[in-house]
Parts: sequence; structure tokens; C-alpha cells
Amino acid sequence: MRHFIEELDHLQSRLLEMGSLVESAIHTSVLALVERTEDLGKQVLRNEDRINRLEIEIDDLAVMLLALQQPMAKDLRLLTAAIKINTDLERMGDLAVNIVERSLGLMHRPPVKPLIDIPQMAQTVESMVRKSLDAFVRREPELARSVLLTDDTVDGLRDSIHNELISFMQKDPSVIPQAIDLILVARHLERIADHATNIAEDTLFVIKGIDVRHHMETNS
Amino acid sequence: MRHFIEELDHLQSRLLEMGSLVESAIHTSVLALVERTEDLGKQVLRNEDRINRLEIEIDDLAVMLLALQQPMAKDLRLLTAAIKINTDLERMGDLAVNIVERSLGLMHRPPVKPLIDIPQMAQTVESMVRKSLDAFVRREPELARSVLLTDDTVDGLRDSIHNELISFMQKDPSVIPQAIDLILVARHLERIADHATNIAEDTLFVIKGIDVRHHMETNS
Repeated sequence: MRHFIEELDHLQSRLLEMGSLVESAIHTSVLALVERTEDLGKQVLRNEDRINRLEIEIDDLAVMLLALQQPMAKDLRLLTAAIKINTDLERMGDLAVNIVERSLGLMHRPPVKPLIDIPQMAQTVESMVRKSLDAFVRREPELARSVLLTDDTVDGLRDSIHNELISFMQKDPSVIPQAIDLILVARHLERIADHATNIAEDTLFVIKGIDVRHHMETNS
Repeated sequence: MRHFIEELDHLQSRLLEMGSLVESAIHTSVLALVERTEDLGKQVLRNEDRINRLEIEIDDLAVMLLALQQPMAKDLRLLTAAIKINTDLERMGDLAVNIVERSLGLMHRPPVKPLIDIPQMAQTVESMVRKSLDAFVRREPELARSVLLTDDTVDGLRDSIHNELISFMQKDPSVIPQAIDLILVARHLERIADHATNIAEDTLFVIKGIDVRHHMETNS
């Protein structure tokens, strides 16, 4: 077996790989919606399996490192964070699939309005995903904190999308089903941002590692 | 420090305690909605802090057991599952808070319709939470599998609530904002059911433990 440090590097590069797949799934799911292109949506559905397999692989790798090594407090916190981050990434992949499901339905109905806010929200969310993982891998607390701040921007975008769509529905009740689907797409994007926020919080915890050290001092 | 087995029992009893708090938060959040009682909603908001503190305590306990012991493959899978289950429970608590936020807004506007489906959905979801945790603590694969099956029932309830509310909105556009809030409450409940499903899946993995054993055989 390779050296522990190499194995940790390997684990982190797999997480980055998973992050790229998820980021691309988010991007493509919203592109499918904007361009009303079924093939793009189906591409996301095909790639979900790869994300799910990578999740299992990363999970196994982290658990194996916990099992075969006796990691120090800091590495231990890193490994448990990796397990949580992995779960967050996999859920983001699920949410991209949820966006595709809405998009596929919306393609066959008249558009409610030109889509400007939703692609903008998606772009913000994608950058949160990338930054949160970069902050984790490079141990950059400032980058992690910037993700936490962006979460408020995303919540604001979601609220303005929500309110605008309600006024469209009230003016023209025939668009209600489509408008609700768009509201749900905005919610899915917001939840992806929440998962990126979780990753940023776990990253800050890994860098500080307060709780683990506290226990190690009092109990060992 | 107590014996490892005792510590594991302690960890599991804390998870059960957290499960009870979360179950009660879900129940009370929907009761606040049905009875239009602000005090019930505020009770859930007050208890959120307790759930969050318990999450940190359980997380610390699991990481400490990973750090100070060298758990066998089966216990290792149990501890990593406990960390994931803990996160799922905390998210359920957040979702109960989201339901309260919707409920507090809905109380001050005319009701859309008598609420029958949503309380029924909530009851089903609460029982999924309880069963998934019982299955984990008692290692009962059949109980875990029953949770997976109930998830389809919950998805069906969500769809029928969704469709019924769309037809209400189309008949009377003045109820659109309230109806959307009710659709979101149903979504929050569905997501709680998804987290219970995650717990059931982790439970089945702990009981079978295939992946861990596979690695242990090939690498150690």
C-alpha cells in the first residue's frame, strides 16, 4: 500500500474529479433548460451513474484509510470531512438530475419568460461548488469563507425568481404548471448551494480542528 | 474511558435521542400549520438549537471513537454510518424549520383548502424516521427495507398534493402564493423522507458490510 500522505492526495484528487463531474452536470442541466435541448438533459442522466460509482469508490477509500492506518487527529478530521463532502457531492448530482427532470417537461410546453435569472443563479452556484472544493484541497480558509458569503446572494436570487414567477402566474394562470417547475429548478439550485456551503463549513472545521484536539487532550 | 462496546451503545442512544427530537420537530411543524398556531411554530424554532448541539456532540463522539480505538471493519462501518446518519438527522431538523417558516406565513392568509393530505404525509414521514433509526440500532434489515418501500408512497402523496394545488390555483389565482407555500411544505416532507431513506440504506450497508470486508481481505 502506498504511503498514507500519497493515499490522502489520491483521495483528494478523486474528490476534485467528482467535483468536476458534478459541476458539469449542474451546468448541462441548466443549459438543457435554456436551450430546450433534450440531448443535453439525457447526457446528465447518463453521467449520473459515473458520479454514483465514484461516490462509492471515494467512500471505500476513506473508510479503508481509517481502517488500515491510525490517523492523527488532523488527518482523522480530514477523512471524516472527506466522507461528508463526498455525500454532499453525490446529492448535488441528484439535484442536477432533478433539474433535468423539470427541464425535460418544460421543453414541450410554451416558455413562461426568457430565462436570465436562472442561468445566472446556476453560474453562481457552480462557482461555489468549485471554490468550496478548492478551499478544502488547498486548505484556504478565506476561500471557504467567501463561499459562505455567496450563499446569501443565492438566497436573494431564489427569492426574486420566486416572486417574479408568482406575478407571471397571477397575470396568466395558464402558465402555472411551467412557472412552478421553474420555481422548483431555482430551489434545486439553492439546495446545491447549501451543499457547497456544507463543504465550506467542513473545510473550516478541518483547518481549525478545534473539537478533535480538545478531545485528544482530555481523553488520551 | 468506558469500554468500546459501551461507548458504541452510548453513541446509538444519543442518535435515538436526536431522532426523537427531530420526529417531534416534524410533527409540531405540521401541527402548527394545520392548527394555525404560532406558538407551536416557535417551539420548533427554539428546539433547533438543541438538535444542532446534539449533532456536534454525536459527531465528536464518533470521531473520538475512531481516533482513540482501532475499530474492526464492522465497527468502523458502524461509526462512519453514525456520522452520516447524524448529518441526515440534522438536515431533517433544518427542514422542519423550513416547514415552520412556511407555516408562519400561511397563518396570516386565508386557507386554500382543508389540510388532510399534508398531515397524512407528515405522519408517514415521521414513521419512516423512527423505523430507519430503529432498524439501524437493532440491525433489522427487514425494517430498513420497509422504509425504502414507503419512500414510493411518499412520492405518490407529494405528486397528488402538487397536482391538486395546481388545479386550485388555476381556478382561483388569488390563492397562488399560499398554494405554492403548501407545495413547498410537501417538498420539505419529501426531502425528510429522502433522508430517512439514506439512513435505511446506510443501515443495510452496515449489516452487510460488503465493501469494507472486501478491502480488508485484499489490502491488509
